Amino acid sequence: MSAFASSAQIANCAAKASYGRFRKSSKSAAKTSSSSRRGLSVSAMAVKAPELDINTKVFTKEMVDVAGEQEYIVRGGRDKFSLLPAALKSVKSIGVIGWGSQAPAQAQNFRDSLAEAGLADQISVSIGLRPDSKSNDEARKLDFTEEKGTLGETFDVIAKSDLVMLLISDAAQAKMYPRILAAMKPGSTLGLSHGFLLGVMKSDGAEFRNDINVVLVAPKGMGPSVRRLYEQGKEVNGSGINASFAVHQDATGDATDIALGWSIALGSPFTFATTLEMEYRSDIFGERGILLGGVHGIVESLYRRYVRNGMSKEQAFKETVECITGPITKTISTKGIKAVYDELMTTPAMKEEFMKAYSAAYAPTKDIHYECYEEVQSTNEIKSVCMAVERFNKFPMGKIDGTEMWKVGEKVRAERVESEIPVNATTAGVYCACMMSQIDTLREKGHSFSEVCNESVIEAVDSLNPYMHARGVAYMVDNCSYTARLGSRKWAPRFDYNLDQRAYVDLDNNKGIDKELESQFLNSTAHIAIKNCCELRPSVDISVQFGVGQAREIENIDMGLGKK
Amino acid sequence: MSAFASSAQIANCAAKASYGRFRKSSKSAAKTSSSSRRGLSVSAMAVKAPELDINTKVFTKEMVDVAGEQEYIVRGGRDKFSLLPAALKSVKSIGVIGWGSQAPAQAQNFRDSLAEAGLADQISVSIGLRPDSKSNDEARKLDFTEEKGTLGETFDVIAKSDLVMLLISDAAQAKMYPRILAAMKPGSTLGLSHGFLLGVMKSDGAEFRNDINVVLVAPKGMGPSVRRLYEQGKEVNGSGINASFAVHQDATGDATDIALGWSIALGSPFTFATTLEMEYRSDIFGERGILLGGVHGIVESLYRRYVRNGMSKEQAFKETVECITGPITKTISTKGIKAVYDELMTTPAMKEEFMKAYSAAYAPTKDIHYECYEEVQSTNEIKSVCMAVERFNKFPMGKIDGTEMWKVGEKVRAERVESEIPVNATTAGVYCACMMSQIDTLREKGHSFSEVCNESVIEAVDSLNPYMHARGVAYMVDNCSYTARLGSRKWAPRFDYNLDQRAYVDLDNNKGIDKELESQFLNSTAHIAIKNCCELRPSVDISVQFGVGQAREIENIDMGLGKK
Repeated sequence: MSAFASSAQIANCAAKASYGRFRKSSKSAAKTSSSSRRGLSVSAMAVKAPELDINTKVFTKEMVDVAGEQEYIVRGGRDKFSLLPAALKSVKSIGVIGWGSQAPAQAQNFRDSLAEAGLADQISVSIGLRPDSKSNDEARKLDFTEEKGTLGETFDVIAKSDLVMLLISDAAQAKMYPRILAAMKPGSTLGLSHGFLLGVMKSDGAEFRNDINVVLVAPKGMGPSVRRLYEQGKEVNGSGINASFAVHQDATGDATDIALGWSIALGSPFTFATTLEMEYRSDIFGERGILLGGVHGIVESLYRRYVRNGMSKEQAFKETVECITGPITKTISTKGIKAVYDELMTTPAMKEEFMKAYSAAYAPTKDIHYECYEEVQSTNEIKSVCMAVERFNKFPMGKIDGTEMWKVGEKVRAERVESEIPVNATTAGVYCACMMSQIDTLREKGHSFSEVCNESVIEAVDSLNPYMHARGVAYMVDNCSYTARLGSRKWAPRFDYNLDQRAYVDLDNNKGIDKELESQFLNSTAHIAIKNCCELRPSVDISVQFGVGQAREIENIDMGLGKK
Repeated sequence: MSAFASSAQIANCAAKASYGRFRKSSKSAAKTSSSSRRGLSVSAMAVKAPELDINTKVFTKEMVDVAGEQEYIVRGGRDKFSLLPAALKSVKSIGVIGWGSQAPAQAQNFRDSLAEAGLADQISVSIGLRPDSKSNDEARKLDFTEEKGTLGETFDVIAKSDLVMLLISDAAQAKMYPRILAAMKPGSTLGLSHGFLLGVMKSDGAEFRNDINVVLVAPKGMGPSVRRLYEQGKEVNGSGINASFAVHQDATGDATDIALGWSIALGSPFTFATTLEMEYRSDIFGERGILLGGVHGIVESLYRRYVRNGMSKEQAFKETVECITGPITKTISTKGIKAVYDELMTTPAMKEEFMKAYSAAYAPTKDIHYECYEEVQSTNEIKSVCMAVERFNKFPMGKIDGTEMWKVGEKVRAERVESEIPVNATTAGVYCACMMSQIDTLREKGHSFSEVCNESVIEAVDSLNPYMHARGVAYMVDNCSYTARLGSRKWAPRFDYNLDQRAYVDLDNNKGIDKELESQFLNSTAHIAIKNCCELRPSVDISVQFGVGQAREIENIDMGLGKK
């Protein structure tokens, strides 16, 4: 936080541009910079000044406009590697701790970028692992070795590193942080890719040592994507995964530039500002909502409803899961949420059905979103995750895909003809209501549009839903991090019951369209923000394994947490 | 706790008796007392000494044996009123704060008992209310008036009382406790009927003032029952509602006898020892489990399953809700859990089906019980309740009985022929598994058999299930305290999903009987404990309004919390 308290270096601001203009030439972007400095907006909207400053002495921050709100970002790219020596001048050794989803990718990217910046001999990148870990072999294969001094025991590596990138699982961080913090050098930097640890420490009443920096760089994609896009970026400058970043504690005065150096070395095309607190809240909340728990509860409850009302099981699966992960996802990914109503609802009758479902589902889903957000905010949810992990030896997590619905789903997927997936207006209305009520919850809780759009929309339609489309919701829920899996198990049934008991009862009673909700939906600034944010996505799509829609990632899901 | 730390006054122990002997003459009970002092048991089981002593100087404590564990109790009855002057010698004014379920009953009983003990002129019983509360009129009708000085403003009454019986809602306690504690006289006694406040204060990191006593008397029935049975007790000595009690803080040295005096003045036939912590854990946990949340999740998931498998909706309702709240409840209430298997499963095929369902449902329900218990224990659950109550103006609780199942239920109840309610072996197996896994969870967490049996069995089959039988599960869930309603909404869907995803998948896959679980069920000492505890229930049944089974209470449900 301290980094943001200093005076805004507005003079640093090179360009004012709406996100929608980001792919135009830098010349046109530069043209608007003078008007921005006078506080004028390119749009007619009142512009809100950025809440978080970026206190960089090395990089160039840019002010961007997202639906009328200004945010600072830092643009990356390989042409910025020449700034790494200045950004990392106090760093001689980097320790990457762990070998999950993020660690191999981040370690390799960092090493490659340092080499390209001519820093290979001056800054080392080492891996820290338990000596009995099987991951040691994998690290050696990628040329992190004991002989070169770039592979060692966890605490040895921590003790000698100037930048400790702590990429072990949430549960391991929760258990080991006192020892990890104690092992760090005075003046060194603790680097996180998820704010979870802050939540754990708040719950414990613990605080970070005040003689170290604490920063966050959170790539908005899973590790393999971070690596793959970095490699593609060697050919196409600007490809990569965007990241959010935060400076939680700046003991040395250069924490911001160390964090930004890290982010740019990973290949992030753009880096957005957040705080550790806001990052973990939105991340843990988001996966419990529309990304996993919400969508699971929606499809379970709707499938049941459709079957109860006489639809065949196969058809009900198509009109719930298939409809969401197929056409709805594709539409939102390419044209935004409102296009589901404007374009996918092709008749007045469909539009009416959509809006009735939207009206019925908005409040019941927002109710659960609020409860979930406040559970996360209060650290209850983090304490729950830690307690559940402790119970695993006694109560291992069961699989959830053995029920009838998911057996039907296997068959439906096997026989799928993509072009024949039906569009169900009720399903669309409920899904969009849950997504919008999540967006509104995050906005009301003070999150920036960048964070909101990433955690509620982009991650859903570009990362998770395509995965579900290929393998099924249940498979996905069963194959992500403990934090996400536990959250999905906890919150999906809550969305389910609240929809069943309230939204669907309203539909049965033909309660009709809530005109105020309709108007709020049609006129929400979130639609502009989503459009703006989507245009900030990498310019190069990752190859899509499953042959569906707009998937930008493959193999695994990105909860920002890494797998297990 | 301090009261229990002092040396056990074993010499006080007048009688050793198994609960099963309690209705025999006191002579036969006395006969076994000498063997108890030598540590011998009347049964072949190893006897475990009581964990909680009762440090009374006025009353007579008795050691009883519940399934091989010794517990102290204090026997009440109108013949003990003569001990009230000694027990309450330091109390001149009693302030009853609030006017919910418990307050009118406890205030009247206390006033009547003091009069009978010749203390009417020496100890006053006053009601403390907000001046704008509509309850003032109701209090005046019962002869608590400003003129007599027995009705006043909340904080005025608190400030002048030697014993403050704090009987306002959980949510109000959570908000107002700092002001309430500050208003109390040094050396006075804070009396609670629920340990919830301790959980709130733990969550807040707050502590009680050390110059006051803090005690609990928790009648195991709702307020109207506490009053009605007391009135019946004027004719039949010994009728009344049993209570648990605890001394959390003993600043004056006579906290135990003040608490026991309160309990006996309420008409409790027996008073059991617990702690504030164990009381709120078992109470808040219990209502989230088999008492409300568990049974709701069971019937929702089973109804769906039976309909999915081709049963008519009416029949499915009969074979789930009706079956549980009718014959299963009646059997457990009169003969215990094991009798459901031994007697209600009348054929080998039914016994096999029961045991398959039991085997499949035990682990999935225990999983949720453990999670719930640890959420309560960690104070997460209490914090959640407080946060939810704060959200009520924005997100009021919705009704849950509008779904198809409960509409079907209305019809089924209206046309009910009691003797024709079917017994479904799968339903019985799942229900008993959930009840047994709750019992086992509480036992593994260190609760006494008295507490376990009351919170997991007796309250279910003698109080809540008969109510559900008359009005439906959903109506009941919608008509109890906020703490209970919120808990049921939160946990019912969790039981539902875990049963559906795991237990019923096991049944579909014909996983068979788990011989170890079968043996544990058939040989559990819980069956003896339940039998022992049931024999400690009031000797006079309350009139039953709904004409069903073994109901001992009417009108409302007893969560130990009072309504709203």
